[in-house]
Amino acid sequence: MSDLNKVFSPKNIAIIGISSSPHKLSTVIYNNLINSEFKGSIYFVNPKYKNLFGKKVYKSILDIPEKIDAVVIAIPTDYVKDVLIEAGEKKVSLAIIITAGFRESGQDGLKRELELKEIAQKYGIRILGPNCLGITSTHNKMNASFSAVNAISGKIAFFSQSGAINTALLDMAQSRNLGFKYFVSLGNKIDINENEILNAWINDPEVSVIGGYLEDFYDGNDFVKIASKANKPIVILNTGKGEASQKAIHSHTGSLATNNVITSTALTQAGVNLVDSIEELFATLLFFERSKIPKGSKTAILTNAGGPAVMLLDLLSNENIVTAKLESEIEKELQKILPSNASVHNPIDILGDADASRYAQALNILEKSKKVDIIFVLISPQYVTQIEETVKIISEISFKSKKCIVPILLGDKYMDDALERLDDRKIAGYKFASLAVKAIKHGINFNFYNKNSYKIPKLNLKIGKYKNILSKIATVQTEPLPEMLSKSIAREFGLTLPQEEIIHTFDEAIDFVNKLGFPVVLKVTTESLPHKTEYKAIYLDINSKEALKHSFNKLMSLCQKYGKSEELLIQEFVNSKIELMSGAIRDGDSNVYTNFGHGFGHLILFGHGGIYAEVFKDTSSFIVPATKEIIEKSIKSTDVYKILNGYRGGIKYDLNLILETLQKLQKIVQTYPEIESIDINPMMLTPDKCYCVDLKIFVKK
Amino acid sequence: MSDLNKVFSPKNIAIIGISSSPHKLSTVIYNNLINSEFKGSIYFVNPKYKNLFGKKVYKSILDIPEKIDAVVIAIPTDYVKDVLIEAGEKKVSLAIIITAGFRESGQDGLKRELELKEIAQKYGIRILGPNCLGITSTHNKMNASFSAVNAISGKIAFFSQSGAINTALLDMAQSRNLGFKYFVSLGNKIDINENEILNAWINDPEVSVIGGYLEDFYDGNDFVKIASKANKPIVILNTGKGEASQKAIHSHTGSLATNNVITSTALTQAGVNLVDSIEELFATLLFFERSKIPKGSKTAILTNAGGPAVMLLDLLSNENIVTAKLESEIEKELQKILPSNASVHNPIDILGDADASRYAQALNILEKSKKVDIIFVLISPQYVTQIEETVKIISEISFKSKKCIVPILLGDKYMDDALERLDDRKIAGYKFASLAVKAIKHGINFNFYNKNSYKIPKLNLKIGKYKNILSKIATVQTEPLPEMLSKSIAREFGLTLPQEEIIHTFDEAIDFVNKLGFPVVLKVTTESLPHKTEYKAIYLDINSKEALKHSFNKLMSLCQKYGKSEELLIQEFVNSKIELMSGAIRDGDSNVYTNFGHGFGHLILFGHGGIYAEVFKDTSSFIVPATKEIIEKSIKSTDVYKILNGYRGGIKYDLNLILETLQKLQKIVQTYPEIESIDINPMMLTPDKCYCVDLKIFVKK
Repeated sequence: MSDLNKVFSPKNIAIIGISSSPHKLSTVIYNNLINSEFKGSIYFVNPKYKNLFGKKVYKSILDIPEKIDAVVIAIPTDYVKDVLIEAGEKKVSLAIIITAGFRESGQDGLKRELELKEIAQKYGIRILGPNCLGITSTHNKMNASFSAVNAISGKIAFFSQSGAINTALLDMAQSRNLGFKYFVSLGNKIDINENEILNAWINDPEVSVIGGYLEDFYDGNDFVKIASKANKPIVILNTGKGEASQKAIHSHTGSLATNNVITSTALTQAGVNLVDSIEELFATLLFFERSKIPKGSKTAILTNAGGPAVMLLDLLSNENIVTAKLESEIEKELQKILPSNASVHNPIDILGDADASRYAQALNILEKSKKVDIIFVLISPQYVTQIEETVKIISEISFKSKKCIVPILLGDKYMDDALERLDDRKIAGYKFASLAVKAIKHGINFNFYNKNSYKIPKLNLKIGKYKNILSKIATVQTEPLPEMLSKSIAREFGLTLPQEEIIHTFDEAIDFVNKLGFPVVLKVTTESLPHKTEYKAIYLDINSKEALKHSFNKLMSLCQKYGKSEELLIQEFVNSKIELMSGAIRDGDSNVYTNFGHGFGHLILFGHGGIYAEVFKDTSSFIVPATKEIIEKSIKSTDVYKILNGYRGGIKYDLNLILETLQKLQKIVQTYPEIESIDINPMMLTPDKCYCVDLKIFVKK
Repeated sequence: MSDLNKVFSPKNIAIIGISSSPHKLSTVIYNNLINSEFKGSIYFVNPKYKNLFGKKVYKSILDIPEKIDAVVIAIPTDYVKDVLIEAGEKKVSLAIIITAGFRESGQDGLKRELELKEIAQKYGIRILGPNCLGITSTHNKMNASFSAVNAISGKIAFFSQSGAINTALLDMAQSRNLGFKYFVSLGNKIDINENEILNAWINDPEVSVIGGYLEDFYDGNDFVKIASKANKPIVILNTGKGEASQKAIHSHTGSLATNNVITSTALTQAGVNLVDSIEELFATLLFFERSKIPKGSKTAILTNAGGPAVMLLDLLSNENIVTAKLESEIEKELQKILPSNASVHNPIDILGDADASRYAQALNILEKSKKVDIIFVLISPQYVTQIEETVKIISEISFKSKKCIVPILLGDKYMDDALERLDDRKIAGYKFASLAVKAIKHGINFNFYNKNSYKIPKLNLKIGKYKNILSKIATVQTEPLPEMLSKSIAREFGLTLPQEEIIHTFDEAIDFVNKLGFPVVLKVTTESLPHKTEYKAIYLDINSKEALKHSFNKLMSLCQKYGKSEELLIQEFVNSKIELMSGAIRDGDSNVYTNFGHGFGHLILFGHGGIYAEVFKDTSSFIVPATKEIIEKSIKSTDVYKILNGYRGGIKYDLNLILETLQKLQKIVQTYPEIESIDINPMMLTPDKCYCVDLKIFVKK
């Protein structure tokens, strides 16, 4: 048991601010403690009273003769500080501060909050809140919160930044007999925060699933690091994704990647399941607590009605979940036991007159299929349907099976008894197919990311050749790095750039094309002409000696007229109909990979490039460091991948070239965390090379 | 009252195949009739019995002394035919055939079904089914179905092809006290089908909302025509969208548009609301039956908790529903009555300690805003929340308001009493924000399409110049029309094509560029060289007289070597970085716009073009005929629109040019319904023209 688990399991509690009014939060919490059958002693503190509810009321916590583990503070804001000092002197372990009026109420409140923090540090007292609902822990029957609904005992642990969502979730959980070990309201998180809690819970064998509602992350990077160590599901409702926190970032690539993308990419990659609504949160917690994690993503449907099965297929295909094709032996076996007009191809329709035993026979056969990871069992209430018998049988088969079997009971009150049977047997059943599908999607993702997780072997990073110069530039620079330095860094890690040479004579230009052939690009350098675009000082796609001569002469005379030195740059002209892009953008500062770092690190993007990349948004991303599997999944999730993979008889490119490029990018930003963003657009693929045609690097401390 | 309403309101019913067993469907239906308090006489027919349940049992329907309006036939398949003949002789108006074993069981069944159809036509008897659950109509208290759940009385009318979905829906409706006038199980639809029913219901003043579950459309085109005449909401769950019926169509444009796209575009455009799941179906029916239709799409949120409001904002932005910015006067008024730390900017957070009267004051102010069409009122169960009082006040304000006010009660059982109050007062309330948002989206769409509906003034179409040749070619042609004919048709309707001329001498080429300037394209014609691509016989982007001379000479010598005649085509070279596409594809045959037509007619597409148009799928579509408003909405829903509308200081193009082009396309396919598909890719926009650069037309009878 980690420290926090101990802190959260006090043997006794003092309620500061107990009142004779049943409506005061302190009294509500007292009643909740009594109703939850808390076995420890409860002490009252309030100078206004001598006795209340048949108990002595102390003037101060210091007057209580016993050692006190936890205090609940529900008193006017102005008194909190003094009470906390007394609690410190009393050597209390945990102060649950219900009182509001701190950071959330402005500058003065923030000041008051910082005072509390100081006191806590001085005395070594841990604080939950302030401005929180309290905590429920069911293993010691302690509901030290003013939640209107009680949590029942179980193996889910939940933290939350919203009282409103807590009550709604607990209400749903109570209906479905879904239990919690912990239910913690975080409040303003001045001491105990979600990261410490997460860490404690992933190491707590009595916790099987972790859930949370977060409006902001105390330290997102740390959260991800902790989450990636978990081998149990974590389900988070994180709101504010729509408009929130869209930083204007100067790099082109950057503005594609909002902070929201960084947060959700990082969390997803660490195996965290992100949900969009309370109902999805609940459906997903229920799933993870009661269902088997699917070993893959192939689904089969067993149904007693065609309509709902087709509807379910549509819902699955909306979420890109694949339907299994069954082995012919399995189909034959099904054929033997089913009526002739049943359908033995997935979805398996065992017809409206299916009784419980037909469900059992069919499910037992289907369960043997090696092509199936997930089986949905649809029960529509038809005239002969034996609903309760059927769910009993599904439960029994599900217990023995290694597959993820999910019953869906279509209806409302009519299905309540059967759903209760499933709840009694701890099988995750659903009434709404749409929520069942969302929950299963999270199951599939958890399986993928848990296997291919964030934990990649530590790279053996050398100190980069340009370390010194970069860290110097990083403190002052706002423009992109000089072209030559960007290219040097790219070459250091083996990125493929178009070949190029600085030339001074036409003969040198001819030497270059004799080596590398046409077509080429000819342009001025920053030495010869600082702002080349103003003079149209670039010739693309030069295909003949005549054209080369022509452009050489034009550019040279430009240099002679405006330039500092007479030099030109000749380059391979890389051409491809498909413009790709890739890049990186850093969340946090250049210390992000150190122990002092805040932020998620670098997000690496890949997708369809060109000047309209941002309009069409065909990009995918991953957070550094990522495994090969995650990078591949990322590449394959773009539309442009379909083209690169041989679209309509077109060239099938070697996708390893992209994979390697993205891996190199990953290595670059780890070596040089000073890099704030990299923008490679266009990037172009040829049969044997992945060219970074235009490359910009921005650095920032 | 139309005929069908009369047929569905029989004064008496004979149950053929009544049985002493309580499990036989006939007996279940009898019990449902009794339980629903059907006031008409009920007769029994079954040669096996003399008396049952205290009633005389007749050997044949012909033996019943009275005139019979309706029969319920629930007997073995083989006897249905003879019984139907007797019913015909008895001049029965409606036969509800429960018995299965027809089309759904194969070829023999189909034969049996056609026999029934013939008998029905001969005697003028109307058939519901076969293979159906029966019909419930609450205005005459008739539950002549074997549904396990009864419908309560109300103003929704529902038809369905799935018994399973019926029961689930009725079960949900019963929990929420949502009532139906009709609940009709369609079965195999050999006579009465959804189109006839839809037509009857849109004309029935006692029906306020029409719902349906359809696996296939009897005649989709007709359905759309009928639906577009409705001024009441129609909500359809149409499954099988995922993989269904994807025809391989040869035209490039065509394969973008699957039948599924055609169906859903046509239905949406006719104002039909398409839903994906039973829960969304229910939530939407509830919304339309109880809520006011929003007059626009701008939403405001009134909440007593921040977290759920932010979650709701995210859900709204997922569905592209906009959030209103309030008038500063409204914000000031709110400020006056709310605590200082409340938020008066949308979402309006009236804080956790909000009681019913604070909700009332704030809602009354918000309700006056001219910037808001829809108000979500979020109620989170916090300690002081007066849930039932609050919903009472919301109901009262909602009754008086012209705005769409939607309460969301976050929780489960804890919220049941309050939800019941809302149900009693006929206010649409929701527990799940995600479903509320989906329902509101349908409300917004209904408002848009009802105002800008399918009913456009009949075009004054002339007979096309090429009518004769096209109808001839349509019977034999599989290749695209010859280029010159396609272009002639395009010019007939004023589509802009690149200017071009056939030339025989270099002087003629020079004349062309003197008139129109560079750049130009030079290529061979089909006369000069039939398969031009094999010889690379096209030069693009010719920019100078030298280049023109060079390409002229090259092509002419090709013609001299391989060709029939020495002629070339010179063309304006239209260049644009953004390749667009447009096109049309026909559903149904060339009779589609006549009274004999089946199918939805032509779908017109617009979007981002180029060779990868299908990968990126940035297209939108509408069905012919469409109003200007619908075409504009369609254009604006593409991503490429953002570019055309002046992206990052780029050119802002005149979108009327696209609008006009699509309107011309619409006119072309109406004039020449022989056109099976048109493929314009690329289409290019310049500041004053919308060029159809490459145009292919396919025709087919």
